[in-house]
Amino acid sequence: MSQVTLMQIAEKLNISVSTVSKALKDYPDVSDKTKGLVKELAKTLNYQPNAFAVNLRTKESKTIGLIIPAIVHHFFSNVIKGILAQAEKKGYLVIILQSNESYELEKKQINLLLRQRVDGILISIANTTRNFTHLSDVITQGKPLVMFDKIAKILECSKVVIDDRKAAKDATQHLIDTGCKRIAHFRGPLLSQNSIDRFLGYKEALEENNFIYDSSLVYICECGDSSFEEGKFNAKKLLQDHKDVDGVFINTDLVAIGALTAFAEMGIKVPDDISIVGFSNWFMSSVISPSLTTINQPGFEMGKAAFKQLHKELKQRKKSKTVVYEKIILDTALVKRDSTK
Amino acid sequence: MSQVTLMQIAEKLNISVSTVSKALKDYPDVSDKTKGLVKELAKTLNYQPNAFAVNLRTKESKTIGLIIPAIVHHFFSNVIKGILAQAEKKGYLVIILQSNESYELEKKQINLLLRQRVDGILISIANTTRNFTHLSDVITQGKPLVMFDKIAKILECSKVVIDDRKAAKDATQHLIDTGCKRIAHFRGPLLSQNSIDRFLGYKEALEENNFIYDSSLVYICECGDSSFEEGKFNAKKLLQDHKDVDGVFINTDLVAIGALTAFAEMGIKVPDDISIVGFSNWFMSSVISPSLTTINQPGFEMGKAAFKQLHKELKQRKKSKTVVYEKIILDTALVKRDSTK
Repeated sequence: MSQVTLMQIAEKLNISVSTVSKALKDYPDVSDKTKGLVKELAKTLNYQPNAFAVNLRTKESKTIGLIIPAIVHHFFSNVIKGILAQAEKKGYLVIILQSNESYELEKKQINLLLRQRVDGILISIANTTRNFTHLSDVITQGKPLVMFDKIAKILECSKVVIDDRKAAKDATQHLIDTGCKRIAHFRGPLLSQNSIDRFLGYKEALEENNFIYDSSLVYICECGDSSFEEGKFNAKKLLQDHKDVDGVFINTDLVAIGALTAFAEMGIKVPDDISIVGFSNWFMSSVISPSLTTINQPGFEMGKAAFKQLHKELKQRKKSKTVVYEKIILDTALVKRDSTK
Repeated sequence: MSQVTLMQIAEKLNISVSTVSKALKDYPDVSDKTKGLVKELAKTLNYQPNAFAVNLRTKESKTIGLIIPAIVHHFFSNVIKGILAQAEKKGYLVIILQSNESYELEKKQINLLLRQRVDGILISIANTTRNFTHLSDVITQGKPLVMFDKIAKILECSKVVIDDRKAAKDATQHLIDTGCKRIAHFRGPLLSQNSIDRFLGYKEALEENNFIYDSSLVYICECGDSSFEEGKFNAKKLLQDHKDVDGVFINTDLVAIGALTAFAEMGIKVPDDISIVGFSNWFMSSVISPSLTTINQPGFEMGKAAFKQLHKELKQRKKSKTVVYEKIILDTALVKRDSTK
């Protein structure tokens, strides 16, 4: 049995689609007799109102869309948790889509969400997204859009971020403060804005402390996704290339744990031979041995803040108030553990 | 600017909604002049076809729904990866919803997906779901439904699972084979079918080896979600209650890693004092020290198989062939590492 449409009900009763629609919604300008006939047939045929119909009545779907690059990434898992916690409190359902770091998929997903008539969209963009027309279209259509973590700086909308540059500078400064003299950096994908900002923070800390910046000490994430294997691979390469390195600032904890594992396999002692600082403060970082010094990146709080901002804008629109875009910068903190001196 | 509907276009041009709909889809029974007017106005007003309209034309939305209890759980993360990999290959978008182990939320989400007119639904049910009417409704409406991992045994639909009981029996047998004499079990939530099956496998292994079953050796997950903290908590309790235990089979790796951490803190040597077998084969299990012996639960393959089955049923329906429900049981395997002798 396929799904029943308003048009099918209209044809069977030989009335117009809009009369069927109005009858189902108890409009006063439809007779009780017609209402009765329509409702009975709708029930018999097991008619399901579609999202559009729901929108017509309430002008809102109480559904929002969320697009993230990678669900399996522990940081985004925490963001999702934060968004869902807040959305449930306010009675919203969240449609989650994973762009898998693909610009093409992200575009399709934005279109899908617009077709599904969500009330608003939360997005952290893919590393490959360079053109933002699909996102400015959302804004032009008067649909609230809040970006978080991976944002497009030039787009005018609300944003929830951390100060990646400052956090990376703090991480590198800690390595310098604990006596490291030659500090490498495992950065993320070449084009990711967060990776660029963290790299700049690393460089800035070196320069402020009169260290000579050496580009051969910076290792790019070659496979595109920052993985455990990537950390192992780069750690081995680092030891081949530079025997004198005594500190590494690593873009994300998962990669750092990969590096820790490779160092252990090769008999390199952490922090005696090499100190490591990660980024994100994944709970596993406190569990492994040695535990990982890292930057706490507040994923749960970021998710909460992003939903709250979206909800605020939805209310502003509903009351026809001016929508005020905000840039919310959440605090990060250095968490000292056993992988640094 | 709010979203434009077919009805608004119809009113502005003083024609019927179905003429507008037909004009936008190039139906031959609408004049070129009308088509031109409708399309021009639709463009000017920035009209977005809704999901319903897309359905009318193609009879499919190329969108499927996925409901899972917890996205952050590493096993489900792998399932999602498998589903997305397969869905992308076939050109489907996946709407992901998290039930958060709540029956009420799960019901709402099923309704949302039906309203959004997805082509089919993949679901792993919440621990609290005891009534299955919302799911049998999906089947009655002729919408393909495939359950995976956490299934309702009585529902007639396709299912993708592992043999939890056999896998748990293998895990316990390994503890017995490596010399453990008194074996505890940390089981998951009381009402979860998977937890029940794993508990039964543990019990069966004991009985087959003439071990006396002692219910005080079975620890329930009291907080409801199998967490790292739960593992630590139960490990401490176990040591207080039973000084003679020399083996533990733990329902899931994350909890097992919590237990390993607690044992390390209390100076208990694994596997010399106590052997541990986990369940799921999370990649972290090979990384921690000592590495964890566990059951490999093929999440990625489960996701792939679930989508493939759904897709098969969609094709069967499209060709008006009889839909054949299948129960696919994926293999598990014991992965021996350093937490057992």
